[in-house]
Amino acid sequence: MGQAGSRFVGGAEYKALDETRVRGFLVALPFAETALGGAADAWTVREVGDGNLNLVFIVKGPKGGLVVKQALPYVRMVGESWPLPLDRAYFEHEALKIQTLAAPRLVPKLYHFDTMQAATVMELLEPHLILRKGLIKGLRYPKLAADMAEFCALTLFRTSDLGSPAAEKRERQVRFSHNITLSKITEDLVFTDPYRVSDMNRWTTPQLDKVAAAFRADAPLKLAAQELKWMFLTRGEALLHGDLHTGSIMATETDTRVIDPEFAVFGPMGFDLGAFMANLLLAFFAQEGHATTSDDRIAYRAWILDTLEAFWTGFEARFLALWAKGGAGDAFMPSLFTDEVGGVALEAYRHMTMTRLFQDAIGFTGAKMARRILGLAHVEDLESIEDADARAKCEKLALRMARDLMVGRNAIGSIQAVRDMAETLAKEVVA
Amino acid sequence: MGQAGSRFVGGAEYKALDETRVRGFLVALPFAETALGGAADAWTVREVGDGNLNLVFIVKGPKGGLVVKQALPYVRMVGESWPLPLDRAYFEHEALKIQTLAAPRLVPKLYHFDTMQAATVMELLEPHLILRKGLIKGLRYPKLAADMAEFCALTLFRTSDLGSPAAEKRERQVRFSHNITLSKITEDLVFTDPYRVSDMNRWTTPQLDKVAAAFRADAPLKLAAQELKWMFLTRGEALLHGDLHTGSIMATETDTRVIDPEFAVFGPMGFDLGAFMANLLLAFFAQEGHATTSDDRIAYRAWILDTLEAFWTGFEARFLALWAKGGAGDAFMPSLFTDEVGGVALEAYRHMTMTRLFQDAIGFTGAKMARRILGLAHVEDLESIEDADARAKCEKLALRMARDLMVGRNAIGSIQAVRDMAETLAKEVVA
Repeated sequence: MGQAGSRFVGGAEYKALDETRVRGFLVALPFAETALGGAADAWTVREVGDGNLNLVFIVKGPKGGLVVKQALPYVRMVGESWPLPLDRAYFEHEALKIQTLAAPRLVPKLYHFDTMQAATVMELLEPHLILRKGLIKGLRYPKLAADMAEFCALTLFRTSDLGSPAAEKRERQVRFSHNITLSKITEDLVFTDPYRVSDMNRWTTPQLDKVAAAFRADAPLKLAAQELKWMFLTRGEALLHGDLHTGSIMATETDTRVIDPEFAVFGPMGFDLGAFMANLLLAFFAQEGHATTSDDRIAYRAWILDTLEAFWTGFEARFLALWAKGGAGDAFMPSLFTDEVGGVALEAYRHMTMTRLFQDAIGFTGAKMARRILGLAHVEDLESIEDADARAKCEKLALRMARDLMVGRNAIGSIQAVRDMAETLAKEVVA
Repeated sequence: MGQAGSRFVGGAEYKALDETRVRGFLVALPFAETALGGAADAWTVREVGDGNLNLVFIVKGPKGGLVVKQALPYVRMVGESWPLPLDRAYFEHEALKIQTLAAPRLVPKLYHFDTMQAATVMELLEPHLILRKGLIKGLRYPKLAADMAEFCALTLFRTSDLGSPAAEKRERQVRFSHNITLSKITEDLVFTDPYRVSDMNRWTTPQLDKVAAAFRADAPLKLAAQELKWMFLTRGEALLHGDLHTGSIMATETDTRVIDPEFAVFGPMGFDLGAFMANLLLAFFAQEGHATTSDDRIAYRAWILDTLEAFWTGFEARFLALWAKGGAGDAFMPSLFTDEVGGVALEAYRHMTMTRLFQDAIGFTGAKMARRILGLAHVEDLESIEDADARAKCEKLALRMARDLMVGRNAIGSIQAVRDMAETLAKEVVA
């Protein structure tokens, strides 16, 4: 860890917290006592981290609750054999601060960051549920599409060269460019491993063996994956959340919050948009595996696609509105286009840019779908389908969609076309 | 200056060197005495800096010579009213080190960097002449096209995600992302000022008043300029020299060296390629102003275009060869394309990428031409034409070419087409 801002994260005194140590950690923070109320021994502590990387404690007192999230020095889902730098807690906290400036309503409140312990204290979101779990249960979220459109438009626009001056943007980019280890995980697990033989890969076997082999032999698909990887490596368009799947969103019917930006890095805007859309589509294709005699999930599947469509159209409208209003950025300076001809030309250009961004986004959508079926990290939407044949059927359809999006992205003109693709595939019987 | 690596550049003891102080500075360096020979009072010192930003001393002793280049804390061509951070000397030195690894034959040898004095000691290039001066004189450089093709191919490929692993590339990108002030100069002076009213602009007046006004009202051109600016701001494809004009090249008939990379930053590869091509084209359009009754420069103009063509075709071939051989990079990993179908597909993709890169490059070519005629910093090729009408005639043709390249770049398919454009324009009589 060479970077000035994070070199002291996880110092000599770092020690993984447990339910006892969390109390001691919080007692030292005056605001925690105020927020929780009562004496420390009256607080309840529960470790709830179900992600791949961290410890998460919910602490409740007579007066209220808090969350303490601590980075572990290794990948939790793999074990101590895969070390992971603790400074990701620093990047997560830095990203949350910037997201709080850009979209305060849509992230948890931040209370405290402890550099030495690589631990963040933040708002306890109740009664929020991890969105992925809600989608598996078949719950509807009427505000989800609009809230996520808003989150993406605000955070991407405001951290881009449209929304912030070049010097500020370059300074932020420097800060997050140090997040090398986590970026490398994305580069390998999303864009490379699913397309080659790797010990890290797993899939529903033997049902998907042929499809996995076909992916590894599919030259146009591998070129598309590597082109998307090059975009991820080179296009520092905006500060990405970097891992914007449905497990990084907590929601109720009336509230949506985005959490866990530890993969934050400057990259192509389509990457975040694609991550969210990919996970909606994975949820869509998984629904058949969750159908029961009393709930066929047909209407719910349509609701997921409604959400997908409303997310993109909402994002596009919001982003265009922010851009039309004019940002503080150095790109496409509004002052250059004040005459009528200039205004009309810039307006046309903005729409063309949204089409390009859409095509980037659906390319990343495909890549993010495929890696969750053929790569290391899978999604509960599909993993929770116990019957392997039923699961494989859902997965094959999702992989076909993934390939079509990645290879065909420049010929797909609208989110309605993406919806049609999903609906058409879902009607097919898979061999 | 917040960056760890350069925060001590130009410390409390910084003092601009003069011919006396240079001696004292070198006496303290044992290798200098060895290289120069004799006693310090036998050395001759001459300040030769004719650039916009720095002091440059040539020091000669009985045994040999050296160059000492020192950054000044302000823009030399403007004065102390425009301060400029001294740490650009650090970035220049860092870039030279990387270029030395990538293309050792084509840069000066580095001897010493003094952080406190923001000063670099390097090889004295003799009998090299600044290429721009040679082009004004009508000198031919048989090795220029091949050497510059080699320099660009080696430095761009090896610092890109094709040629170096993602972690190394991100670390280098971090280092150069701190070069914010000089990057901002490029952003403003190249991509913005020529297209708006700015105190910084100047042009041959009144002859070019109408053309300058037309540029400021030309919506498609301004969009093209801003699109190129956005690319410069966001696409960290490779470590750019950042200022690769003919004043940053020293040459003889048999040797070519690239100097002065103080604007180094990660950016789109087309930016460096375009800078060099732009300055060849400016030299081409300036030739009519240097023609005399005994030397009409007709054949020399053709030689410049031969050089332009050979530069691009040579670059393309060399870059493709490096890529085909396979780099250490994380993008387009060769191991993914080892089967025959994969190999053929990747080969086709590489050629498509070169077409895209060509179109980026000629867009930047246009932008770099226009800024030298309508913006702050001009070129001696044109400035040395004393007759304002004759100069304006050359400049108008160059500006028409610049516009056609910027607006039409995606419809221009080859370097031969660019050559044809230049030849056709040169035949026209300008109103």
